[in-house]
Order: sequence, then structure tokens, then C-alpha cells
Amino acid sequence: MKFTLAVAALAAAVAPALAQAQFAKADDAVEYRQSALFLLGNHFGRIGAVVKGDAPFNKDDVARNAELVATLSKLPWPAFEGGQTNGKSKAKPEVFSDKAKFKEAADKMETAVAKLNTVAKGGDLASIKTAFGEAAQTCKSCHDNFRAK
Amino acid sequence: MKFTLAVAALAAAVAPALAQAQFAKADDAVEYRQSALFLLGNHFGRIGAVVKGDAPFNKDDVARNAELVATLSKLPWPAFEGGQTNGKSKAKPEVFSDKAKFKEAADKMETAVAKLNTVAKGGDLASIKTAFGEAAQTCKSCHDNFRAK
Repeated sequence: MKFTLAVAALAAAVAPALAQAQFAKADDAVEYRQSALFLLGNHFGRIGAVVKGDAPFNKDDVARNAELVATLSKLPWPAFEGGQTNGKSKAKPEVFSDKAKFKEAADKMETAVAKLNTVAKGGDLASIKTAFGEAAQTCKSCHDNFRAK
Repeated sequence: MKFTLAVAALAAAVAPALAQAQFAKADDAVEYRQSALFLLGNHFGRIGAVVKGDAPFNKDDVARNAELVATLSKLPWPAFEGGQTNGKSKAKPEVFSDKAKFKEAADKMETAVAKLNTVAKGGDLASIKTAFGEAAQTCKSCHDNFRAK
């Protein structure tokens, strides 16, 4: 029991240190996650333009963007884990105080864009529209709860 | 001949418009390329820490980072093509006035990090160090010529 507690305490002490170690400065952590989310939004938006009929449907372009979105969707989260932030960050305090709920929201987005990626490879526009809509909902929901206006 | 010239003129007029169309505002183009290059630098730097012996060598982590670097290396360039810039951009005027030389530098980097990606999948640290050094040289050379201090 004593040993288990000691291990748990050690893990708790080390885990944030490891997460933080990726980013020497808070500014780096913020710029990293903002960069990943900006690129994610940009490439997701390119699919959105097709879905809305503002851009022509090119199967290969949509698939390429969906693949990138799926790759980028995995990046931002470790950069929040160390609790690093600064005045440029729009992360609400809940990102750091309710980590389980934030992780759940992030996971939902990752799952939805992974599905969009699969569907995009199939090249059926109607299915892409549905998967895009579901993914967009996960963005909105997370922004509503965790991003300041 | 008249027709060819007309087509060439049309292509010249349309091509920058298409490139620009990806980014409604100059601020978006600058944030896009800075985001891509920041993430690129961050993940390249994680391999660098291993190469320098500042971080332990984990084959899978290096391969994952090299894969990401290769993916990210393709992103920044279209965001320069429309000539959009702002006060936050560190792009020297040569980026826009000597496009052929800038493209050559970008291509060299893409080729070098594609090689690093291939080598990283092999998992041999000595080969990774060599490929990393060659790639780092292409970053430095492009920054020296095209990025303001």
C-alpha cells in the first residue's frame, strides 16, 4: 500500500513534468497549440467550402485535406497538459481545471475527423457532407465550452 | 501566337488569384505559413534533441516526428505564392521577388526531410544523425537568405 501510494505520487509528480518538458516556455506551448488548431481549422474550412458549394468538389483535394485534418487533430492536446498559458491564449480556465471533460471533447473531435477522413477516401460527397457536419459540431461544442470569445 | 500569348496572359492573371484565393486576408496567409513552419520547427527540434543526446532515442517517436515533419514541409509554400504579407511576417522581400530561388530552397528542404523520414523508419541512429544534419543545413540556408533576423 505504501509502495502503491509512493508510485502514484511519483507518477503524479513526473507526468506533468514530462508533458511540460516538450515546451520550455509557456509561449511555446501556446504557439504550438494555436498553430495546430489554426492549420486544422484552415484545412477543415477548405472541406467546408466544398460542402457549402462555395468551392468545386475535387475528390482528391478533399481526401488530402481530410487526411491532414486527421493528422493535425492529434497534435494540440499535449500542449495543454502542462497547464502552460499566457495572455494570447483563449483557453478558458476549465481547460486546465476540468481536464477530463476537455479530454472527452478533444476525443470526440478526433473520432469525428477520423471518420471524415475515412469517408473522404471513399469520395462520396453526400457522405462527406454528413461526416463534415458531425465533425463541425464537435468543434463548435468544444469552442463553446473551452474557448473564450 | 496571339492565342498563345493570350493564354499565357490569362494564366499569369489567374494563377496568383487562385493561390491568393486560399487566403481571404494577408493575415491568414501569414498565420498559416508561420503556423506550419512553427510546428515543423518544433517537431524537427524534437529529433534534434535526440541527435544531440539531450533526449533518449526512441525509434518510434523519432519516426513519428519525421513523418510529421515531412507532411508539414509541404504546407507553407502556397501561402507565400500570392505575395500576401504583413508586419508580423519575417519574410524578406526576396521571397516574393526571387520566387525561383525561394522555391529551390523550399524544394531542397522538402527533399532533405523526405529522406530523413525514410531513414527514420529504418531506425538506425547514425543514419538519422546524418540525414538530420543535412536537413538542418537546408533550414539554415533558407533562413539565412529569406528570413529577416
